[in-house]
Amino acid sequence: MQGQAQQQAYDRGITIFSPDGRLYQVEYAREAVKRGTASIGIRTAGGVVLAVDKRIPSPLLEDSSVEKIHKADDHIGIASAGHVADARQLIDFARRRAQVNHLRYGEPIGVESLTKEITDHIQQYTQVGGARPFGVALIVGGIENGEPRLFETDPSGTPYEWKALAVGAERGELQGFLEENYDEEADLDSGVALALEALASVNDDSLLPTEVGLATIDAETESFVQFDDDRIEEYLVENELLDEGDDEAEGDGDE
Amino acid sequence: MQGQAQQQAYDRGITIFSPDGRLYQVEYAREAVKRGTASIGIRTAGGVVLAVDKRIPSPLLEDSSVEKIHKADDHIGIASAGHVADARQLIDFARRRAQVNHLRYGEPIGVESLTKEITDHIQQYTQVGGARPFGVALIVGGIENGEPRLFETDPSGTPYEWKALAVGAERGELQGFLEENYDEEADLDSGVALALEALASVNDDSLLPTEVGLATIDAETESFVQFDDDRIEEYLVENELLDEGDDEAEGDGDE
Amino acid sequence: MQGQAQQQAYDRGITIFSPDGRLYQVEYAREAVKRGTASIGIRTAGGVVLAVDKRIPSPLLEDSSVEKIHKADDHIGIASAGHVADARQLIDFARRRAQVNHLRYGEPIGVESLTKEITDHIQQYTQVGGARPFGVALIVGGIENGEPRLFETDPSGTPYEWKALAVGAERGELQGFLEENYDEEADLDSGVALALEALASVNDDSLLPTEVGLATIDAETESFVQFDDDRIEEYLVENELLDEGDDEAEGDGDE
Amino acid sequence: MQGQAQQQAYDRGITIFSPDGRLYQVEYAREAVKRGTASIGIRTAGGVVLAVDKRIPSPLLEDSSVEKIHKADDHIGIASAGHVADARQLIDFARRRAQVNHLRYGEPIGVESLTKEITDHIQQYTQVGGARPFGVALIVGGIENGEPRLFETDPSGTPYEWKALAVGAERGELQGFLEENYDEEADLDSGVALALEALASVNDDSLLPTEVGLATIDAETESFVQFDDDRIEEYLVENELLDEGDDEAEGDGDE
Amino acid sequence: MQGQAQQQAYDRGITIFSPDGRLYQVEYAREAVKRGTASIGIRTAGGVVLAVDKRIPSPLLEDSSVEKIHKADDHIGIASAGHVADARQLIDFARRRAQVNHLRYGEPIGVESLTKEITDHIQQYTQVGGARPFGVALIVGGIENGEPRLFETDPSGTPYEWKALAVGAERGELQGFLEENYDEEADLDSGVALALEALASVNDDSLLPTEVGLATIDAETESFVQFDDDRIEEYLVENELLDEGDDEAEGDGDE
Amino acid sequence: MQGQAQQQAYDRGITIFSPDGRLYQVEYAREAVKRGTASIGIRTAGGVVLAVDKRIPSPLLEDSSVEKIHKADDHIGIASAGHVADARQLIDFARRRAQVNHLRYGEPIGVESLTKEITDHIQQYTQVGGARPFGVALIVGGIENGEPRLFETDPSGTPYEWKALAVGAERGELQGFLEENYDEEADLDSGVALALEALASVNDDSLLPTEVGLATIDAETESFVQFDDDRIEEYLVENELLDEGDDEAEGDGDE
Amino acid sequence: MQGQAQQQAYDRGITIFSPDGRLYQVEYAREAVKRGTASIGIRTAGGVVLAVDKRIPSPLLEDSSVEKIHKADDHIGIASAGHVADARQLIDFARRRAQVNHLRYGEPIGVESLTKEITDHIQQYTQVGGARPFGVALIVGGIENGEPRLFETDPSGTPYEWKALAVGAERGELQGFLEENYDEEADLDSGVALALEALASVNDDSLLPTEVGLATIDAETESFVQFDDDRIEEYLVENELLDEGDDEAEGDGDE
Repeated sequence: MQGQAQQQAYDRGITIFSPDGRLYQVEYAREAVKRGTASIGIRTAGGVVLAVDKRIPSPLLEDSSVEKIHKADDHIGIASAGHVADARQLIDFARRRAQVNHLRYGEPIGVESLTKEITDHIQQYTQVGGARPFGVALIVGGIENGEPRLFETDPSGTPYEWKALAVGAERGELQGFLEENYDEEADLDSGVALALEALASVNDDSLLPTEVGLATIDAETESFVQFDDDRIEEYLVENELLDEGDDEAEGDGDE
Repeated sequence: MQGQAQQQAYDRGITIFSPDGRLYQVEYAREAVKRGTASIGIRTAGGVVLAVDKRIPSPLLEDSSVEKIHKADDHIGIASAGHVADARQLIDFARRRAQVNHLRYGEPIGVESLTKEITDHIQQYTQVGGARPFGVALIVGGIENGEPRLFETDPSGTPYEWKALAVGAERGELQGFLEENYDEEADLDSGVALALEALASVNDDSLLPTEVGLATIDAETESFVQFDDDRIEEYLVENELLDEGDDEAEGDGDE
Repeated sequence: MQGQAQQQAYDRGITIFSPDGRLYQVEYAREAVKRGTASIGIRTAGGVVLAVDKRIPSPLLEDSSVEKIHKADDHIGIASAGHVADARQLIDFARRRAQVNHLRYGEPIGVESLTKEITDHIQQYTQVGGARPFGVALIVGGIENGEPRLFETDPSGTPYEWKALAVGAERGELQGFLEENYDEEADLDSGVALALEALASVNDDSLLPTEVGLATIDAETESFVQFDDDRIEEYLVENELLDEGDDEAEGDGDE
Repeated sequence: MQGQAQQQAYDRGITIFSPDGRLYQVEYAREAVKRGTASIGIRTAGGVVLAVDKRIPSPLLEDSSVEKIHKADDHIGIASAGHVADARQLIDFARRRAQVNHLRYGEPIGVESLTKEITDHIQQYTQVGGARPFGVALIVGGIENGEPRLFETDPSGTPYEWKALAVGAERGELQGFLEENYDEEADLDSGVALALEALASVNDDSLLPTEVGLATIDAETESFVQFDDDRIEEYLVENELLDEGDDEAEGDGDE
Repeated sequence: MQGQAQQQAYDRGITIFSPDGRLYQVEYAREAVKRGTASIGIRTAGGVVLAVDKRIPSPLLEDSSVEKIHKADDHIGIASAGHVADARQLIDFARRRAQVNHLRYGEPIGVESLTKEITDHIQQYTQVGGARPFGVALIVGGIENGEPRLFETDPSGTPYEWKALAVGAERGELQGFLEENYDEEADLDSGVALALEALASVNDDSLLPTEVGLATIDAETESFVQFDDDRIEEYLVENELLDEGDDEAEGDGDE
Repeated sequence: MQGQAQQQAYDRGITIFSPDGRLYQVEYAREAVKRGTASIGIRTAGGVVLAVDKRIPSPLLEDSSVEKIHKADDHIGIASAGHVADARQLIDFARRRAQVNHLRYGEPIGVESLTKEITDHIQQYTQVGGARPFGVALIVGGIENGEPRLFETDPSGTPYEWKALAVGAERGELQGFLEENYDEEADLDSGVALALEALASVNDDSLLPTEVGLATIDAETESFVQFDDDRIEEYLVENELLDEGDDEAEGDGDE
Repeated sequence: MQGQAQQQAYDRGITIFSPDGRLYQVEYAREAVKRGTASIGIRTAGGVVLAVDKRIPSPLLEDSSVEKIHKADDHIGIASAGHVADARQLIDFARRRAQVNHLRYGEPIGVESLTKEITDHIQQYTQVGGARPFGVALIVGGIENGEPRLFETDPSGTPYEWKALAVGAERGELQGFLEENYDEEADLDSGVALALEALASVNDDSLLPTEVGLATIDAETESFVQFDDDRIEEYLVENELLDEGDDEAEGDGDE
């Protein structure tokens, strides 16, 4: 292991290795992910759940404009954590790839294929000079051949497949909560409940509808559905997680 | 958190992350925004209001040439704060995108679509080397499907939708004033009054017509209208905000 | 505000922001403008006056070759202050844009349009890497729809419209003189007198014909006219500003 | 030999030699390989065995998504150690080369040819500027003219042919184990047993099926076959290497 | 004014401004001009005289190969001072522009036009990165519309028109001599005499024919004529400036 | 000669001269050659001998994969010392050039021509930026017009023709041995014996067949022939140089 | 003049001026020339003589492969001193230019034209970034319109014409010897004698045939002829300069 002075010598170069074989810029991009509020993905027998924590820095901000859940194709949704503007670039990339697949092969793109096209794109920004890595992690969920699939892309460009995962702030606590409470046999509604409970677990056990984003991709309909505040409130009431408080924070482009 | 010497190591590179996951050049570009005089946007039931504070460094300067409010399309106006020359680039970009939309689809561009084309353009300057970020924030207001819409673009390339917002100098005070006094049900004239009151609130409660810019996009006519000094004076008199003093400041390309 | 050591860290990079949101290279380019001798522009009801101070470092130098006033089109003249070779590049750019307008639209280019094409060109050199900013300020004067118009371009790429202005050395004193003595109703000849008086005010109240450049764009004829030394001498005699002394200075490419 | 201060002077440049003729960036990329978990390749008379150690940082992670064994063509498999995202790039490169060979020559690519195309590609990233070396080592195994062949590619772009080898973490111990126990006459099943015993030798002599990857390329069928967890468990039971423990580790993109 | 340590911070960048608005690389290129031996240009009523001081470092060097006077077109000659190889590039550029003018317009290029094409070319090397400025000054003399014209190009890319001028070593003394002795009414022969007297004035009042270069462009014939050593000797004898001594100096590519 | 601190100032730039006119990166590339095991070339009346020392770091490594002798064309062989991956690039380059010659001229390429094409290629990497020099020396041997020819290429891109030479580790001792024992009249078999004796002279006077590479290009057959371990063992026995020991070393990409 | 610390600040940049107007990289390239052994050119009434000093570092090196004299065209020869690999690039460039001249104009290229094409090529490497200057000086000799011509190219890209000159090691002593002993009326054989005497004068007054290169371009035949060792020995015997000693030196790519 090496000291701080030595570390500084290697972390300023975008694409070089440190003596112990690390890529500091990629590790710092992971810190940008942690600066963003949490996003959660849960795979159930009945489909995939995406749920996100949204900080609304002012009551005058339209909470719908804090976009952390995106539709990539009819059957695929993506939740993000980290640098918002970077996320938008990757979402656009994902949508274009999904469209190209429709045009070329006349069928929807696979969830795994799309994830790997995204991670290959991310990897280029960690090896070739002239640009910085993407400071964002994505949760890619969807239905493939009738099966729910759930993937993560990280700033190094590595794809992972998960049953349930959290990215962004407090990943450690959230992932622990999921590991303890995850039930592979659960249905989609139970998955929604688990996701909201997880978010609430690091938030005084209660949530505001406007500060939560929620979407599902049902295994049967194979359709991405994003929920509005009213529907989220119903879910919160149902699960006794509703909060009326007012949580204000400074927005700085990292969600 | 880290000390000053360490910060210096990361803030000189245009597109690299600091160890805690921040992009210093983007944060410094936000400082350039704060160096500009304030701009305000307010969404009312009857349309969108754009109002700006203009510093006229010399009585011989044509106050109309301090352009902080721009028409992007018949139904969309943009107010800016920060580096003026950078703002002009983004305005030109926005106008070209609006024209392209007319040509391609035979219909006006949506306010949200235009905002996101602008923010995607801004993001490129924060990730790819060879250029600095844009030192400007824009308020994009307009009518979409009959509904007033109001957006912000920041130097990181993140889009936000607002009911009412301020950018530039004294953003904190102004945003506080708006939060206290904003009324979602208000009509367009009340929106104009609120905008002028907000500007006056950080300016000894009075304003000179030549040092204010004002425009509205009416939800019914769907037309951007910019007001001349006489009309602004009427508004100021009406709201008891008229000043006869003479406020002189050094112009340095940041408005 | 920050100390000198910190400033040095940010002013060597061409296109990056300092922590307080400034672009040092642009500010230093403004210093290059101040190193040049003064240029003045005055808008009168009867047309626009351009007047410049020229330093002739040797009696053997043809004073006509110290070009600070340029014809951009029949109806537009440009005076410059700062780095001479940079000014020539922008003048060439302006002339080409004026010609293109004639070819494309069969009509002369507007004074405001031309100014903004120039400032957009200047802005590029402050944002994209690989080149330095232009070290020159221009005064663009002309007639548009029968109306005299007068603009300034600065090294940041910001356009300003003026009634009367000075750029270059002693801008502060000259602008003060203009503010005190400017009369919007004056005719073109009074404008010429005011310009010469202003130049003389920072030069022991007298001027040499060879060290002054003078041009007008008459609102009626819409024609740029540059005056020779004899005509300038007449004007100086008329206004009791003629000097017979011999003022020698080192030329270093900044006028 | 030289001291640490001198070393620092040369290891930050991507593609330059140090005074003693070393390429530090390539040596650091080798450290990235060591940060990854071990991969093993064994050539037997009956075919090639590829076996890998996989760390599953969370029980919710699909162990199948930790891809360290890849099919490059029907008759060629590749195991990797080191930076996962880099490995994916090289695997994609290998698959494209294999396809091109089918298209151009109507026959499968040779194992040696493919290896050398990969290493030539790797070498470019160690000599030409603008990118960093690949932080990954590959084990390329397959059947060529009925003969099992086994190669290694390292970050310098050098190809080696082996009877049996280990790359990644604990390479030294594993290579020692293989040298002691390797039998050139062994059949494919004995090769599988040796590979698993080697992996177990540095892991308390027991393994979890989910933390092992296993594939063979049979000399007779000339077909790459990857084994599922059940089949791996059978092998582990057969060889008395089965573990029921739970080994958790932090994933950071190096496998 | 600023100290030496600060200066060093700005003079290593090719194309950036110092805090006081100077371009150090251009100023250093002017030093390269001063390292070269002197060149003189004199405009008389009867034509233009170009005269240069040539240092011959060895008696075995052909003095004719120390080229400081060049024919650019039939009616235009160019004398240079400074970095010889740079001068050759600009001369080649000038000749090509003169030829292009013949081809395009069927008439010889104007002296002023040619000079400005050269200075615009020079300016590019002071603003755009990737190359250094030209370390050379040119004296461009010729006949335009029957009138003798005489110009200077400096390393900043500024054109000047002169009656008489000196560039290179001892410019100050030579320019003073010319100012004292120049007579605008003189004929071409008197101009030649003045040029030789000036060169001799800084050289113990005597000159060697081989160490002087001499050319005229007659206003009547409009033809560039370069004189050989015999003719130069005649001129020197005529003007009592002939030397028989032997002046040896080290050549280093600056003349 | 200069001190160490000064040297450091110049050896980090890829393509610049030091004050005493040296190219450090090229000299360091020569060090990379010395890090490789020795290669020997001997020209005899009957043809050319290439012999190399190979270190096999593990008994499981196929010694045939440590390629230091390569066939460039039917009548030309190349032995290398230094960075293996770099050698492969140059060998590929040589083979392509040889093929092009066959295609264009219908005849085999000359040994000297091929060598010079290689050295010109190497030189480019020492003058143009963006890449490092090749860290390898080649011995190019072959038959041209019936005559045996033997060349060396070094990292500076200089070609040399030799009667006999050694490159790589212990070049000094080996070259001394060759100078003492070389006999220009010897036949090919004596040449082989001399090459093996030289290699053995720095290796306790004995060699393992697997750690030696051997090839000849016979002047009569004009054919490159590489020998297998059995044939090498015969040669070693014949010359009383056979060793049964086991010499193990760390491979690091330099051979 | 300035101190050593300051010098270091400017000599690392390839193409920038120092405060006193020097180009250090060009001056260091001149040092590379001095590191090479001497080359001599002599122009006589009967033709041009090229003679070079060659160091043979080992008796096994073919002295003919130390190429310092090259045929550029039938009537033009070139001798070089300095970095051998750089010389080869310029020789190739010269040969291509000579061929192009034959193809385009159907006649041999002039000696002066060829020299200037070479120096213009060299100059580019001293002004434009991305490459270092050429570390070599050339002596270009040939017959033009029946007249012997002799030129030098230096690393700055300046062409000089000489009666006789030396470049490389001990240029000072050799040039002094030539100046003392040169006779413009001498015939070609006397020129050869003078060249050999000069080389011998810095070498204990005796020379080895193998360590001398010799060529002439006869004014009558207009043909480049290079002499073999036997012919050189005859010349040495004739001039009582033959040595039988053995002078060994380290070759490092500079000749």
